[in-house]
Amino acid sequence: MTQRNLAFGIMLHGAGGHMHSWKHPAGPADASVNLDFITGIAQKAEANGVAFAFVADGLYINQQSIPHFLNRFEPISILSALATATTKIGLAGTLSTSYSHPFTVARQFASLDLISGGRAGWNVVTSPLEGSAKNYGGEHPDHGLRYEIADEYLEVVQGLWDSWDDDAFVRDRQSGRFFDQDKLHTLDHKGKFFQVAGPLNIQRSPQGQPVIFQAGSSDSGIALAGKYADAVFTHSPSLEETKAFADSVRNSAVEHGRTADDVKIFPGIGPIVGATLAEAEAKYLEIRNLLTIEDALAYLGRFFEHHDFSQYPLDAPFPELGDLGTNSFRSTTDRIKADAKRTGATLREIALAVATPKTQFIGTGEQIADELIRWFDAGAADGFILGFPVQAQGFDDFVQHVIPVLEARGRYSRTLDGKTLRDHLGLPRRESRYATAETV
Amino acid sequence: MTQRNLAFGIMLHGAGGHMHSWKHPAGPADASVNLDFITGIAQKAEANGVAFAFVADGLYINQQSIPHFLNRFEPISILSALATATTKIGLAGTLSTSYSHPFTVARQFASLDLISGGRAGWNVVTSPLEGSAKNYGGEHPDHGLRYEIADEYLEVVQGLWDSWDDDAFVRDRQSGRFFDQDKLHTLDHKGKFFQVAGPLNIQRSPQGQPVIFQAGSSDSGIALAGKYADAVFTHSPSLEETKAFADSVRNSAVEHGRTADDVKIFPGIGPIVGATLAEAEAKYLEIRNLLTIEDALAYLGRFFEHHDFSQYPLDAPFPELGDLGTNSFRSTTDRIKADAKRTGATLREIALAVATPKTQFIGTGEQIADELIRWFDAGAADGFILGFPVQAQGFDDFVQHVIPVLEARGRYSRTLDGKTLRDHLGLPRRESRYATAETV
Repeated sequence: MTQRNLAFGIMLHGAGGHMHSWKHPAGPADASVNLDFITGIAQKAEANGVAFAFVADGLYINQQSIPHFLNRFEPISILSALATATTKIGLAGTLSTSYSHPFTVARQFASLDLISGGRAGWNVVTSPLEGSAKNYGGEHPDHGLRYEIADEYLEVVQGLWDSWDDDAFVRDRQSGRFFDQDKLHTLDHKGKFFQVAGPLNIQRSPQGQPVIFQAGSSDSGIALAGKYADAVFTHSPSLEETKAFADSVRNSAVEHGRTADDVKIFPGIGPIVGATLAEAEAKYLEIRNLLTIEDALAYLGRFFEHHDFSQYPLDAPFPELGDLGTNSFRSTTDRIKADAKRTGATLREIALAVATPKTQFIGTGEQIADELIRWFDAGAADGFILGFPVQAQGFDDFVQHVIPVLEARGRYSRTLDGKTLRDHLGLPRRESRYATAETV
Repeated sequence: MTQRNLAFGIMLHGAGGHMHSWKHPAGPADASVNLDFITGIAQKAEANGVAFAFVADGLYINQQSIPHFLNRFEPISILSALATATTKIGLAGTLSTSYSHPFTVARQFASLDLISGGRAGWNVVTSPLEGSAKNYGGEHPDHGLRYEIADEYLEVVQGLWDSWDDDAFVRDRQSGRFFDQDKLHTLDHKGKFFQVAGPLNIQRSPQGQPVIFQAGSSDSGIALAGKYADAVFTHSPSLEETKAFADSVRNSAVEHGRTADDVKIFPGIGPIVGATLAEAEAKYLEIRNLLTIEDALAYLGRFFEHHDFSQYPLDAPFPELGDLGTNSFRSTTDRIKADAKRTGATLREIALAVATPKTQFIGTGEQIADELIRWFDAGAADGFILGFPVQAQGFDDFVQHVIPVLEARGRYSRTLDGKTLRDHLGLPRRESRYATAETV
């Protein structure tokens, strides 16, 4: 375990998190499928002490979404490719429990974990959007059912990951004994959704098991996180809201017999940094101007089950939407509705703000370092996932302006002292459920 | 396309293809999960002009099988890891159509293909052994049904791979147009087994589509190969038998409207090479002595649905087994039964021969080069997949003794002239089904 310090993850999301970041001149327009660009970001992140790279995912395309997400690498393959192009950085990626087989997913993450020397993380999602079902031939399960499936799914996967004790493979050439039969465990799971016998055909990694990330923020999401998650990827609307959410996750962990410190909170932020505040704001405007109001409306619609917002007057108050949005990106849509009600903002204002949020993480290196430390010290964050609106420029600026300030204040180190992702996150190795006090 | 020359693939199967190769002192005992060892083999193969590395797979473990297959990397992850550790060698792996989702598999291979610059190959299998079903919660489909599923599965995957025309992504920053709508194709597949809308969320690779390998040798397997396969991985019992099989695959290709040269035949061989014949035979005996007769019986049983052969007398003629073995590794079990009948061999002899076959590929570099050229010139092979009984020693010897002879005879080059796996196999780029004569 490393010292208790700020930790960062970095989104590998091609040109960036902004809808039209591909148009920004700082990086290549094909960044989402440009291996050299993505590898370069991961290597630079590693050299600057970033704890993990994070690859989000989607199981279908929709043309109202971020264009470069129409064409991107699949998480297991790109993370595995990065495993041999890096040596220390953690490698986390999204995979859906609603559209996959637990035996396959357990294997793929275990294999990535072993290939990378214990650096794998799995961001467990349940697939919020029903478009996924069209590529998998079935009904899209509703929110409650998806989380019920995810719960059993994680039970299966973590069970499979403990199939072999750490010292099961003796490989004794003299006696001819390859493994110790007493150290092999067959899961024999027979549940409501899954029947999986096991054992898994791969050993445990140096960190024991891949790190579990979780990102859902509904009550079901918080319960799942409390039960299983090592780290939670969440929103950053304000310190207070994120702190309240963080506490609810920590409480959930305690309710599930774990400690509050067993689950690390990582708000996602999209810093825009300048040498001066004016420069940072100019960069913000340059990014905001990458899209038209039509683009912004389409982007907004994606969070509300592809609702067509072009039917409403732009400069009237944000429309009343009823239950729309509750079955997909619920936390985002709840927040948008609440903001609109509180501020009386127009549809145009909301659409522009959602597409290009003007957050508290726009400013100078000093200002952003202050803010990061404030969140950390208040218990709203154990670290942050850096989802730069424009990847190339954003990360360069962050390394140049923010990291030196954090280092100077003794709150960050560019050196990753540990070897595994659990080390980087300040989490203990995950011991097997079959390990006795004596063997641990 | 490269010149018409011998081509090789190499199995990456840990310590080797022999059941107890992990006991052989030439390599590490943990080779199947040793990234450095596997990467070293792949890099040495690439440096010696080997066209592709090949990763086989299994979806469950059984203790009667090769011990190091109890614990091995999963194909997509290890091939992706090798993609960034190599630059030219093709990267092919097994994935089952009976226990996976076509949208996911299409994505993972397309992503590997793009990451590797057009070097991916997919070995399509239907999972011969019913043990797989226990890890996937369902009934194991019978042989005929598995091939029916595989046929529709390939239709879906190849359809998804053509979702985007090669020039679909214009990424014009001035106009804001990311892609050309006319060059996007939605599959909308509605079949007997699969409903997959598409499009896929990743572009085509430099080779157009991943190479399709196929390995089943039943009538259904030959039909599937004729319809879809770019390359067939087959057995090498004798030149005549392999030639007859190769011709049946080529005929099947022609029946499906393709040419005989559209499908390349790769018999798997397990060369054991020495500076002299005596040295090669000594190496063979050293390998054979890695296992006991009990090991050999257990290994034999695996091909016959885990039949327990220890119930029969060892030195009596091979037992009559009826239909046993017809629903799993059919071509292997048919061959074993036929050999036993023809030669009158005992169970002991058959078991030892199956566990450690004494093939025509045991000898000096000159002898093996002669044999390879004889098969190639007779049309029994377009190349060979090297599945060394003991990986470390076997490949070193092959590089030292066989490759120089093939080079001296002008039948092999250590230089991979092309860039993609299709180049290495002498196959044209796979153009999109939507490409017109004008665009190609």
